[in-house]
Amino acid sequence: MAVERPGTVAALGEFALIDRLAAVLAEAGAAAAPELLGIGDDAAVWTPTPGARGVITTDSLIAGVHFRLDWTGWRDLGHKALAVNLSDVAAMGARPRLAVVSLGLTGGEAVADLLDLYRGLGALAARHGAVVAGGDVVASPDRLGLHVTVVGESWPDAGGRLLTRDGARPGDLVAVSGPLGLAAAGLRLLLDGGRPAAAGDGALLAAHHRPEPRVAYGRALIEAGASAAIDLSDGLWGDLARLCARSGVGARIDAAALPVPDRVRDRFPDAWLDLAARGGEDYELLFTLPPAALEPLRARCAAADLPAPAVIGAIRPAPASGAPIVLRRPDGAEEPVVGGAFDHFGT
Amino acid sequence: MAVERPGTVAALGEFALIDRLAAVLAEAGAAAAPELLGIGDDAAVWTPTPGARGVITTDSLIAGVHFRLDWTGWRDLGHKALAVNLSDVAAMGARPRLAVVSLGLTGGEAVADLLDLYRGLGALAARHGAVVAGGDVVASPDRLGLHVTVVGESWPDAGGRLLTRDGARPGDLVAVSGPLGLAAAGLRLLLDGGRPAAAGDGALLAAHHRPEPRVAYGRALIEAGASAAIDLSDGLWGDLARLCARSGVGARIDAAALPVPDRVRDRFPDAWLDLAARGGEDYELLFTLPPAALEPLRARCAAADLPAPAVIGAIRPAPASGAPIVLRRPDGAEEPVVGGAFDHFGT
Repeated sequence: MAVERPGTVAALGEFALIDRLAAVLAEAGAAAAPELLGIGDDAAVWTPTPGARGVITTDSLIAGVHFRLDWTGWRDLGHKALAVNLSDVAAMGARPRLAVVSLGLTGGEAVADLLDLYRGLGALAARHGAVVAGGDVVASPDRLGLHVTVVGESWPDAGGRLLTRDGARPGDLVAVSGPLGLAAAGLRLLLDGGRPAAAGDGALLAAHHRPEPRVAYGRALIEAGASAAIDLSDGLWGDLARLCARSGVGARIDAAALPVPDRVRDRFPDAWLDLAARGGEDYELLFTLPPAALEPLRARCAAADLPAPAVIGAIRPAPASGAPIVLRRPDGAEEPVVGGAFDHFGT
Repeated sequence: MAVERPGTVAALGEFALIDRLAAVLAEAGAAAAPELLGIGDDAAVWTPTPGARGVITTDSLIAGVHFRLDWTGWRDLGHKALAVNLSDVAAMGARPRLAVVSLGLTGGEAVADLLDLYRGLGALAARHGAVVAGGDVVASPDRLGLHVTVVGESWPDAGGRLLTRDGARPGDLVAVSGPLGLAAAGLRLLLDGGRPAAAGDGALLAAHHRPEPRVAYGRALIEAGASAAIDLSDGLWGDLARLCARSGVGARIDAAALPVPDRVRDRFPDAWLDLAARGGEDYELLFTLPPAALEPLRARCAAADLPAPAVIGAIRPAPASGAPIVLRRPDGAEEPVVGGAFDHFGT
């Protein structure tokens, strides 16, 4: 790297940086325990729980594509880079065990900022009983990239069971684990010029910057007998379409039942439905369940201090032709849902 | 993406690309088997072998930093992106189970090239009994990035044992699994202007482009009772220094014993020692073992059609001061080894 300003990664060097990051993780309670072997060997080691099945997921966040450093603080960025992966683990009805992180750095980053990144990452890992067990640090000359992989496993009392996308059956209810549209509304505020103006804008921005992965909710879904799940990263329409395609079914969603908070409806009276249904990044769980499983799930959510499931529609047989998903308007009219998930390459 | 030339990723779109890549993996025999759940859910699933310990490693390759597309073919690039990770698994004395791949794409890549990338990746995975179980595709506007994570586990007959860097003890032998300096000599040829000129240059270039991870060798090491291991990614001096530091020991290396092929010595008569000791990317295993384990290891290598271990020195107590590693010249003089591993940020 050409530039070696004091306090930058380029000035400190790769190996000293790794030592500093490891120290931050230890402080956060997210370093590998002695029975695991973490940073400092060719690979990190863990002992799978006997009888558990393993899950693995990976997500990359690229500066200027997935985040903007002028909008997002470093600690929030570390939180989010892990949160999007934990959300995938949650959607499998699994619990996280460990993460590895590959950092692509320009070299011009301030070491203090990267330590903050790891504070955010470490705090979230520790909160979910996971460790950051290792990774890689490489030069990425043009822009920062965060590449996180999380390994999880089925919950100890689940008998190896996991939640997949392919189990939805006609007659099942469709539900979500929490409010829709908050994160997309927060992003809209940022795109519109940035400064919070109305009361409640802070909550919208927080939803965008610090999504909370629904790990405990995923456990409740496994225990209560949910039939399928996916996490809402690309928006309700896109992610529901994927779940329906994998399950070979269709779905009817009731517009009136969508749990869109008043602060989203009031702030964006013309756009709230689009924000909720196409906006993405809610990182709530979208799931299906037989009607008989609803009360058991409600009871588990209440006992675990989790939001009650919001039933938003029902699974029906896949139509012979036409849109698999229809939206029922408050007046009872049904309209087909067109368009789907966000495509990184815009086609 | 602005450019959507026919045949590019931008023209095809993210989701169609993922389908095409999955088809290539299936053809290569590297798609997840039905008992696993691969591409298409929130996470990939596998069943850990009862009693095995898990290992995980991640490595990123960035265009212009780790590879140049004008030097490396796409199939070789796919091979290498996985090989460097399998090499870490091998150095743990473990076997690979599955890989996940995060692709950072500019959008201008030709789809046909990415399919070739996955052919190289898939062929190597299949050869080692691993599957490519999922991943992520994101926009990386400036340059291609490949971010591979591999999960492995201890060999079924190893009783959960793995090889780490911290087990070397004074009196142990230091050995390597194969020739040193080939890959660095190949890189030197490329840096010097490219075109192979001498007989044997092809082998040097192949060593650079298509390193073979020593997975079977790692198994032989575990079975024979090796005490520590690391894979040679950053060069002998750098990687041996890491092993010594983790084990709290020093080492003496005999220059005359270094297995540097004649084609490296002849092509680079003044630089061969540096190429072999500092050049890096050999992806051979560097390991230590009690002298009594040498014959058992030789026997296992012979039986498994692996190269005989090349003993290059011995572990000694860490010196109270001065360099932990010394090089014994052919005339018997010892000199301290200074300098170490490649630092991505050049300090």
